Amino acid sequence: MSLSVSRAAREQRPDGDALRSAWRDAFRAARAETERRAAPLSPEDQVVQSMPDASPTKWHRAHTTWFFEQFLLVPHLAGYRVFDERFAYLFNSYYVAAGPRHARPKRGMITRPSVAEVADYRAHVDGAVARLIETAAEPELATVTGIVEIGINHEQQHQELMLTDILHAFAQNPSAPVYDPGWTLQDARDGLAVVRPENFELSRGIQWIGHEGEGFAFDNESPRHEVLLQRAAIARRLVTNRDWLAFMADGGYATPSLWLSDGWATVQSEGWRAPGYWQESGGQWSAMTLAGLKPVDPDAPVCHVSYYEADAFARWAGRHLPSEAEWEAAARAEALPDAFGIVWQWTRSAYAPYPGYRAAPGALGEYNGKFMINQMVLRGSSCATPAGHSRISYRNFFYPPSRWQFTGLRLVDYPA
Amino acid sequence: MSLSVSRAAREQRPDGDALRSAWRDAFRAARAETERRAAPLSPEDQVVQSMPDASPTKWHRAHTTWFFEQFLLVPHLAGYRVFDERFAYLFNSYYVAAGPRHARPKRGMITRPSVAEVADYRAHVDGAVARLIETAAEPELATVTGIVEIGINHEQQHQELMLTDILHAFAQNPSAPVYDPGWTLQDARDGLAVVRPENFELSRGIQWIGHEGEGFAFDNESPRHEVLLQRAAIARRLVTNRDWLAFMADGGYATPSLWLSDGWATVQSEGWRAPGYWQESGGQWSAMTLAGLKPVDPDAPVCHVSYYEADAFARWAGRHLPSEAEWEAAARAEALPDAFGIVWQWTRSAYAPYPGYRAAPGALGEYNGKFMINQMVLRGSSCATPAGHSRISYRNFFYPPSRWQFTGLRLVDYPA
Amino acid sequence: MSLSVSRAAREQRPDGDALRSAWRDAFRAARAETERRAAPLSPEDQVVQSMPDASPTKWHRAHTTWFFEQFLLVPHLAGYRVFDERFAYLFNSYYVAAGPRHARPKRGMITRPSVAEVADYRAHVDGAVARLIETAAEPELATVTGIVEIGINHEQQHQELMLTDILHAFAQNPSAPVYDPGWTLQDARDGLAVVRPENFELSRGIQWIGHEGEGFAFDNESPRHEVLLQRAAIARRLVTNRDWLAFMADGGYATPSLWLSDGWATVQSEGWRAPGYWQESGGQWSAMTLAGLKPVDPDAPVCHVSYYEADAFARWAGRHLPSEAEWEAAARAEALPDAFGIVWQWTRSAYAPYPGYRAAPGALGEYNGKFMINQMVLRGSSCATPAGHSRISYRNFFYPPSRWQFTGLRLVDYPA
Amino acid sequence: MSLSVSRAAREQRPDGDALRSAWRDAFRAARAETERRAAPLSPEDQVVQSMPDASPTKWHRAHTTWFFEQFLLVPHLAGYRVFDERFAYLFNSYYVAAGPRHARPKRGMITRPSVAEVADYRAHVDGAVARLIETAAEPELATVTGIVEIGINHEQQHQELMLTDILHAFAQNPSAPVYDPGWTLQDARDGLAVVRPENFELSRGIQWIGHEGEGFAFDNESPRHEVLLQRAAIARRLVTNRDWLAFMADGGYATPSLWLSDGWATVQSEGWRAPGYWQESGGQWSAMTLAGLKPVDPDAPVCHVSYYEADAFARWAGRHLPSEAEWEAAARAEALPDAFGIVWQWTRSAYAPYPGYRAAPGALGEYNGKFMINQMVLRGSSCATPAGHSRISYRNFFYPPSRWQFTGLRLVDYPA
Repeated sequence: MSLSVSRAAREQRPDGDALRSAWRDAFRAARAETERRAAPLSPEDQVVQSMPDASPTKWHRAHTTWFFEQFLLVPHLAGYRVFDERFAYLFNSYYVAAGPRHARPKRGMITRPSVAEVADYRAHVDGAVARLIETAAEPELATVTGIVEIGINHEQQHQELMLTDILHAFAQNPSAPVYDPGWTLQDARDGLAVVRPENFELSRGIQWIGHEGEGFAFDNESPRHEVLLQRAAIARRLVTNRDWLAFMADGGYATPSLWLSDGWATVQSEGWRAPGYWQESGGQWSAMTLAGLKPVDPDAPVCHVSYYEADAFARWAGRHLPSEAEWEAAARAEALPDAFGIVWQWTRSAYAPYPGYRAAPGALGEYNGKFMINQMVLRGSSCATPAGHSRISYRNFFYPPSRWQFTGLRLVDYPA
Repeated sequence: MSLSVSRAAREQRPDGDALRSAWRDAFRAARAETERRAAPLSPEDQVVQSMPDASPTKWHRAHTTWFFEQFLLVPHLAGYRVFDERFAYLFNSYYVAAGPRHARPKRGMITRPSVAEVADYRAHVDGAVARLIETAAEPELATVTGIVEIGINHEQQHQELMLTDILHAFAQNPSAPVYDPGWTLQDARDGLAVVRPENFELSRGIQWIGHEGEGFAFDNESPRHEVLLQRAAIARRLVTNRDWLAFMADGGYATPSLWLSDGWATVQSEGWRAPGYWQESGGQWSAMTLAGLKPVDPDAPVCHVSYYEADAFARWAGRHLPSEAEWEAAARAEALPDAFGIVWQWTRSAYAPYPGYRAAPGALGEYNGKFMINQMVLRGSSCATPAGHSRISYRNFFYPPSRWQFTGLRLVDYPA
Repeated sequence: MSLSVSRAAREQRPDGDALRSAWRDAFRAARAETERRAAPLSPEDQVVQSMPDASPTKWHRAHTTWFFEQFLLVPHLAGYRVFDERFAYLFNSYYVAAGPRHARPKRGMITRPSVAEVADYRAHVDGAVARLIETAAEPELATVTGIVEIGINHEQQHQELMLTDILHAFAQNPSAPVYDPGWTLQDARDGLAVVRPENFELSRGIQWIGHEGEGFAFDNESPRHEVLLQRAAIARRLVTNRDWLAFMADGGYATPSLWLSDGWATVQSEGWRAPGYWQESGGQWSAMTLAGLKPVDPDAPVCHVSYYEADAFARWAGRHLPSEAEWEAAARAEALPDAFGIVWQWTRSAYAPYPGYRAAPGALGEYNGKFMINQMVLRGSSCATPAGHSRISYRNFFYPPSRWQFTGLRLVDYPA
Repeated sequence: MSLSVSRAAREQRPDGDALRSAWRDAFRAARAETERRAAPLSPEDQVVQSMPDASPTKWHRAHTTWFFEQFLLVPHLAGYRVFDERFAYLFNSYYVAAGPRHARPKRGMITRPSVAEVADYRAHVDGAVARLIETAAEPELATVTGIVEIGINHEQQHQELMLTDILHAFAQNPSAPVYDPGWTLQDARDGLAVVRPENFELSRGIQWIGHEGEGFAFDNESPRHEVLLQRAAIARRLVTNRDWLAFMADGGYATPSLWLSDGWATVQSEGWRAPGYWQESGGQWSAMTLAGLKPVDPDAPVCHVSYYEADAFARWAGRHLPSEAEWEAAARAEALPDAFGIVWQWTRSAYAPYPGYRAAPGALGEYNGKFMINQMVLRGSSCATPAGHSRISYRNFFYPPSRWQFTGLRLVDYPA
């Protein structure tokens, strides 16, 4: 969505009104999607924080709003009155440069402002942003729409987290609440039935990776640069629950030699014996999902596995996880029909700056760069990723033991 | 309230209808008080758990209801249908004999059932209890009203916790929400102005302590038994904030020789330098209260102090905390005008069984006995204690570092 | 030993030389006993600290020496030169008033000074103390011998800890080192065969408890005061391993209703299913002892049980743990033939000040008073207690979960 | 040393005796170096474990011996009798395939076997290995010497750890023991005075990295493979204490925008404000070293900095840490005069398998591969690295917060 806006914008430079109108529509659509995701949730649902890594729905709704207020309205809309002076403290996530903030693990304590007050906050800011888009003077319009674009993309990231976080919260409730009775993880079988052969062959050579073109991208997707690839055969399809059940049946979770040392320590301290949210009853596996507790579908892609598990599975299968460059090269070759919209795919690449990367100065420079340690890159996108937020150069990242995201994997092999 | 009921009941034995009606009224009044206390709270307020020791308002409302359902309706009301099979797991607190239960520190994760469903649950159980009181056959009526009486007293204890727990939750919120704008801690000055002399003299000798008579009491108040008291002079008034500020000004929180060893370790690990909920700004102390953040009133009794602090203060003052027997003897002599309804008063007595105490068999036997270790006895009652729940033999108990209850102290001295 | 010295001293007031000589001998004997206990241990054995509650042998040897240096020699021996200025920091245990000190859990890091240097330190201080005893002017002699007496008693306490701490350290070693091949826990059968009946009857009435007379006692044994006892039947014999095996066979460690709530939490978090140091192999129980790993002797008193376990056992047996006053009254009546020298006996009395107790000013006042919270009193003495250190009024104290000491129990019953 | 042996060996194939003799000498030299490093340490020094990441000297001495026993003597020396059956459990480090082992954080509890018994163990194994080298039949000799070579290299790694671990242990002792009064970190000034210019220019292009040739290398240095380098200017000299003091003076440890997010959290939780072992007194910085507490020399390379600190420093300096490929290319060009023997140099490369890497089957396959997560690569070698153990392809690795090793850094820059 934001991509098409910015392209449209650039093609229509002469017509300022069309540009403003396109941005206003994109902004409204993004904001409405957040509300659509929150709609099934009661006030109680929206306030809980089920672990330090997750955040309450209400917090996501308020934080994304604060982002526009702090980085767009305060510096650029003359005469703008902050909705509530206390919100900057409550709803700043981690922008040290934007001032002190409430401790992350205590977000679930903020019963007030209420859900209704947060709705008022959103309306207040929405109106102001719309006004700013309409009225910004030409010289400043590019700056304004640039921040709107970042804000939209930022909000889309939180839309994904709203679903993963509420799933985690609901999974703590023994009565397994349902977020959306119709939710299901797309089964990739049909789309893949015709793909032949099973693997896509990458040839040795220098490839460009990273963001190119005029569309929006985060700073961590740049600078675009060359990498040297080895010959490799990357799987066209995702690893499925059937594959995973075979790994489990073969003692995958009980065989230390399959695991990285830190991974094995996690298996033992956490008592893992299946993917996240799986539970066994009477010899059958079910999984907590956004549709409640459901039997595990063998043909669906495996989901809610950590990097440690993905790595152990690859070793068990006698194969590897792809590097992010291999993934990107295969995706650019249109060889990965299920790359987007199902599960994020772990790569074996540690999250690191691209050569020559330099974080921007100021608070927005804290967006990506300071997290480039101890995490692994995931590529593609998931069922929870909002429309318009996926792209080939996108770099998602999580810690190796994390598995509350919609995370799966595909494998790669190297010719002898 | 329950006391007067049971006395009325026993005086009116011949008239079964009056008895039933008195119990039904007492039950309704207790249940209504819970709802009155919950009324100012939003659904979000009612779901949070701000620390493992505290519980959500919604949980208190549901747990007290489950107590009647589990211990009264299921065994005694023929044909009673449990409201929701899943609630026993969610709302059992610690009764091992009543089956498995949800982990205490995770109570704040239970967004569903909603506040509205809990209200339905309460109405369902209220109707059934009223029906049972009206229809129980004579031989069983005494058993039924006995359990109703325990249930009422149990619910009254949770009414107190509802206030202490929401105060703790609100204190986590930097915007200091207000529960009741009119709340204030009763200032004991006027009532005490005429008491003379300052101390009440206890003489050496054998005294009876513990519950006597026909009114309700918890099992930990029995067996009534004799104790040997030494001569002592017990303060008629509570220690005030003014006293406490003098202790602070004299370096009370920075002088290890005033503290028990475990207390000093807590002062350092918790960074205590004033009572709970106090904060300093510009040289002035305020305290978070049920009325929001308020200046500390020097003439009000000190509140939210732990046993460790109470003990250190007594040492600093060159005096002692009274034993629970001393407290009870003075209270029986009507020498303590502010004994009830302001702050619980720490005693130097470890919480232990009275001689010959034996817990009842079954789940209700878990009520008190299993907590008789590592805690200290408090006597009196507090501003949060509901009407009718105070009595001279009442034994409250908390761990030495706890200070989220309405806890204060009075002192005692021994003649040389 | 120290008791007889001080009596001798007082009887022989006229003869100052005999007094000096008696104290010098008592001092030498106490110091030699420490060395005798350290003798079987290698330098490596003497440096380890196996948990924060335990201390290295070398530390015990140096700390007891520092105690004499700090509290006796520095203030009272003119011209005394401190052996090493750095030792005060390293070997002060918890005397806040005596200056800063090394963190307790890090005592095992102090590889230097070496065992040999500590021996030099002991010799240096021993010589100076002997000199002081011989040369102190009459007016100061009573003060000097008073501190010597405290120092001897202090050292005797550490002698007990030397054995319990090295046992804990050796128990961490899978090859189960032997401290003393001949060590055994005295079997009380023979001595008890003739005692009849099984219980000793205490009658209701006022009794004096606490230290009396001229012998040495710690401050926590005073003031001597009256207590009111109920009728009770206290067991003449200690609970045995045979009794304990019956408790285990009856599911004692798996029945939550037998346990205090905090005790049950400890059972689960620690995985307890038998007394400390017990291990099962092929259906047989052995225990790590000072003589290495040995089969459990059913007729020996049970040892290494915590207060939580003692309390659960009493409940299982339908009886109680005695109060410390009951224990003392029975011991004064010479009704407890195995009171001393086998295992410390848990009482159900929380460790608290006797009425009117006031800690002495200065560092020596930190000896006992500041620990009077969260601990339970044990009475009697153990196989590790040095000769001369037992007495009827002695109050030992440990936390309810502690079980690395030589701790057992006897039971009491109350007539209906 | 081992490198030259294996080269010598291969050049002298015809002469089996020379080969055996060369290996025997190499083995003896490596074993003697371990003893040389242990010699200044008392038995107490050799038993302590100052943190879970460190190990006791005695453990290093025994573990390296067990390595030869387990992997060489047991499978290859007919009739070999294991010295002590219990040692496999005590002295296995992490080889899951070699059986159960003692918990790592409890190594400091093993007071027995004593230092003397470990010396006997070493002598026993040394004799057997020498015998095996002399007597192995020709067909097996290559296997035997291959394992000897691994064992020597393994022991050399532990030689480095012996020094870093004892430094950490001594640093816990407030009296700052001295390991070697003559120890000093080589000052690189003189060697660098003539190097011009300051940076070495790497040109864009494909380079080979990884181990080549016949010398010994660990499996993680293979497969040798091509990488694509960008243009870069890598510093010829190491960052010095003078540089670091400027960073500190400029608020480096107090400026969150300089730090990775996880790094900043560590700075705050650990209270870091200078490199490891530094302490300030009267405005002057000293550092605990193997020679005891010494003033910080501004001209010496900075040492004991973590990855987080190295990364923050690079950002502050407006430069970067090199990738391991850049480091290796510069080292192969002989552009880094201080690459070896002073401090390990952090690179910005996460420790990961080289393309196509596959761990060997069996216990020796656990050597490197299972640690390839969450750690960063260091290149070069340090003052504690034994002679003969450095090489250009060597990959050392530690977690980002670790700083008890001899770790420093050099910087790189990229042309605009």
